[in-house]
Amino acid sequence: MYAEQQANLVLHTDKYQINMMYAHWKHNTHNKKAVFEAYFRKLPFGNGYAVSAGLERVVRYINSLRFDEAALDYLREQEENYDPAFLEELKSFRFTGDLYACEEGTLVFPNVPFLRVEGRIFEAQLIETAVLNFFNFQTLIATKAARIKVVAPDDILMEFGTRRAQEADAAIWGARAAYVSGFHATSNMRAGQLFGIPTKGTHAHAWVQDFDSEEEAFTRFADALPGQSTLLVDTYDTLKSGVPNAIKVAKRLAAQGDGKTVQAIRLDSGDLAYLSIEARKMLDAAGLTHVKIVASNDLDEHTILHLKAQGARIDSWGIGTQLITAADHPALGGVYKLVAKETADGTLAPTIKISGNPEKITTPGLKNVYRIISRETGKAVGDYLTLQSETDAAKGEPLTLFDPVHTYLNKTITEYDAVDLLTPIYQKGEQVYELPTLDAIREHHRQQIGLFWPETLRLLNPEPYHVSLSKQTYDMKMQMIHGMKEKLNRDLNQ
Amino acid sequence: MYAEQQANLVLHTDKYQINMMYAHWKHNTHNKKAVFEAYFRKLPFGNGYAVSAGLERVVRYINSLRFDEAALDYLREQEENYDPAFLEELKSFRFTGDLYACEEGTLVFPNVPFLRVEGRIFEAQLIETAVLNFFNFQTLIATKAARIKVVAPDDILMEFGTRRAQEADAAIWGARAAYVSGFHATSNMRAGQLFGIPTKGTHAHAWVQDFDSEEEAFTRFADALPGQSTLLVDTYDTLKSGVPNAIKVAKRLAAQGDGKTVQAIRLDSGDLAYLSIEARKMLDAAGLTHVKIVASNDLDEHTILHLKAQGARIDSWGIGTQLITAADHPALGGVYKLVAKETADGTLAPTIKISGNPEKITTPGLKNVYRIISRETGKAVGDYLTLQSETDAAKGEPLTLFDPVHTYLNKTITEYDAVDLLTPIYQKGEQVYELPTLDAIREHHRQQIGLFWPETLRLLNPEPYHVSLSKQTYDMKMQMIHGMKEKLNRDLNQ
Repeated sequence: MYAEQQANLVLHTDKYQINMMYAHWKHNTHNKKAVFEAYFRKLPFGNGYAVSAGLERVVRYINSLRFDEAALDYLREQEENYDPAFLEELKSFRFTGDLYACEEGTLVFPNVPFLRVEGRIFEAQLIETAVLNFFNFQTLIATKAARIKVVAPDDILMEFGTRRAQEADAAIWGARAAYVSGFHATSNMRAGQLFGIPTKGTHAHAWVQDFDSEEEAFTRFADALPGQSTLLVDTYDTLKSGVPNAIKVAKRLAAQGDGKTVQAIRLDSGDLAYLSIEARKMLDAAGLTHVKIVASNDLDEHTILHLKAQGARIDSWGIGTQLITAADHPALGGVYKLVAKETADGTLAPTIKISGNPEKITTPGLKNVYRIISRETGKAVGDYLTLQSETDAAKGEPLTLFDPVHTYLNKTITEYDAVDLLTPIYQKGEQVYELPTLDAIREHHRQQIGLFWPETLRLLNPEPYHVSLSKQTYDMKMQMIHGMKEKLNRDLNQ
Repeated sequence: MYAEQQANLVLHTDKYQINMMYAHWKHNTHNKKAVFEAYFRKLPFGNGYAVSAGLERVVRYINSLRFDEAALDYLREQEENYDPAFLEELKSFRFTGDLYACEEGTLVFPNVPFLRVEGRIFEAQLIETAVLNFFNFQTLIATKAARIKVVAPDDILMEFGTRRAQEADAAIWGARAAYVSGFHATSNMRAGQLFGIPTKGTHAHAWVQDFDSEEEAFTRFADALPGQSTLLVDTYDTLKSGVPNAIKVAKRLAAQGDGKTVQAIRLDSGDLAYLSIEARKMLDAAGLTHVKIVASNDLDEHTILHLKAQGARIDSWGIGTQLITAADHPALGGVYKLVAKETADGTLAPTIKISGNPEKITTPGLKNVYRIISRETGKAVGDYLTLQSETDAAKGEPLTLFDPVHTYLNKTITEYDAVDLLTPIYQKGEQVYELPTLDAIREHHRQQIGLFWPETLRLLNPEPYHVSLSKQTYDMKMQMIHGMKEKLNRDLNQ
């Protein structure tokens, strides 16, 4: 019972969604069409881009959406308000709308929709919470992992964070997100099982403590797991005990000539720059140039960058807490906003939310999102949001890209390809998108990185990437803001 | 298939655990007894205590531990190393050990074990990762929630963070952890369904945008959900539009006399102190003193404290991102360390891990953990770790509590009760602990808070709570450190 309830995510939503569904149903407005866009307003970590992730989880969630008996019973018990006929309606609930999204691994930017839902208000509200939950977390971790990849592009990167992850789902979906951005492995076996991510592991201090001597512990480990023998060398003293014992064992195995070998040593405390340099010397002096050095211990992109600047001789990084919790910016603020709604005559009308906080004002209308790629350089010039009624980008006509805040910043571009960023995932409730393999997603991500200039990819103070509204979109937004203000003033003066 | 795999957590562990299990099995040392203690070294948020949470999740996890066919198939495919007989052994795997833990809601402190496992090394290694994952996250969130409770002890506190949580499990277990520490409700319906936590929700901006006017939107919402009508007033302009419209609707409902009512308004942007004071005046002037004010928008204990200091008139707080991700300290560093192991003669011997980082040296031995309560004041004086062979605390003999780092800091206490902090949860693999109801856990937590002086509970610069080792424990630890160093020097000089 518990496990089954665990697996059904239909109630993984905020109560206000169910309340709004109910209130719409009650007024018979629940099947009215609505268009929602999901986007974030601010990049995490001071980064110049984010890496979209979460779509596979969203697709599996939408496909599984069923109000089962347990969910209906719960709603019935909780809310005497709810009309029984509403619960009947939920019983046959299916997602019947259209959904468009950025493919996983795509680079995404502030105020650029990474997902659009066109559906009945009833279903569009229900899925908001879960869609944001999945995208916000997975995109956050994929972005953090991409930053780490930038400082160690040629090293082996391993996600080791499960024990510090924010519960079990974060561990596995975080491991997957890191893999999307170019990590090579995870320690989490369930992530390996569910997603096919390569898994890696060494041993713990307890393994060493379990034996009478460190040397015995190393010998036994290398003996039992000939292909996995990375030896943790800091249980007692890294340079005085751990490394010398690892060297003894490695030399003995090499002398045996039966193919067994010590693959690597792992440093897990102390100064990793100093220790890795000294350990490398000791290993090389013993003729063990093939034995690699793995490091762990609260690593992130900053620590790795500085260790490398000091000449650390580390081949492989086990990265835990800082990656799996995105510790320096542990939430991405993705939002999901109504941009158009069905009117009495059945057409879609743009709608806007005003706010005292200017950055929270929405951009109304049913829009397309294009990534403009220069034909000359092959690089992305900017993202361009147009109303769907506009065709200039799709037709390749000259585009004027301008900053929606500082409108005097603009440039006109002629030779370009306009790539529609939002791929159809569902059409009328049918999944029309085949989920790519994880390796295809990694490759897509690698290609995406290649579309951007180094100044966008820099860790510190990257150059902001250009995001433009079409002039029509901008003008409509401004008209609606002014119209709304005039209406407010009229109402107040009545 | 996917949902079933999702539900089985047996592979929710690090690969190195499976590798160590395998290596032990290979050397036939896997059934040797081992004692592990779990504890953290540093409190999060600069707080003076943490609130233990995660035990129910651990119990459900341990009870469900089965290597099903999917898990065995995965291990078989992944690791050609693994002997088929090892996989056979896993097939019949059950947890057969003893497990002791702090009850949920208990206040816990650095370097005080909150959990102890005495079992076969085989099983004790397997569960380490999940046990830490669950306790680290849930304890972190319960602690964050307790801090928020400190600044708003008489207000309604609602967990609203699902969309920013680190994936789905974090949302529900985080909601539960917040409830343990005195929150009143969550927005997450699945947390309500699974744990019986009260759920609350209002409506979104989209609800208002969906209608031709804000007044119509409010009217329809209050009409459909007479018991739930908290109206969000900042879609267009809080004081010029939202509050006046809410007042119109509330007055109309009050005049109808059919019991329908506007319960509250919700502020979600702008200056919450100013807006709540003004909104309160407007509501009161309209005779609507019963209409409450709910606030949300990136709140945490600091913001709430400052808003209250400025006279904010807020009755109820919806708290999201900062709570559910513990944003200012998003990981608790709980560790799980071997403290004793079975020797050749079948007895348990203490074991230690030395480290270049002094705080990472473990405290060896099979220990009891007592909370020393003064009979005079009824307050906790300190936590006291003794070897199980010692009986002074249990017998109420005079105790000398001293700081394990600054040993000159000490005091002797005579009139006290020594409360064993670690409750038996499993004995020889049998669950001997009945999981309390969530309300009983909340009550236990409330009582725990009452055991501590305000100086421990203060948000900023709390007085550190006293954690002592018994003299025997301390002396043994020092002897083992010196013995280990001598051995290292001997080995080097050989």
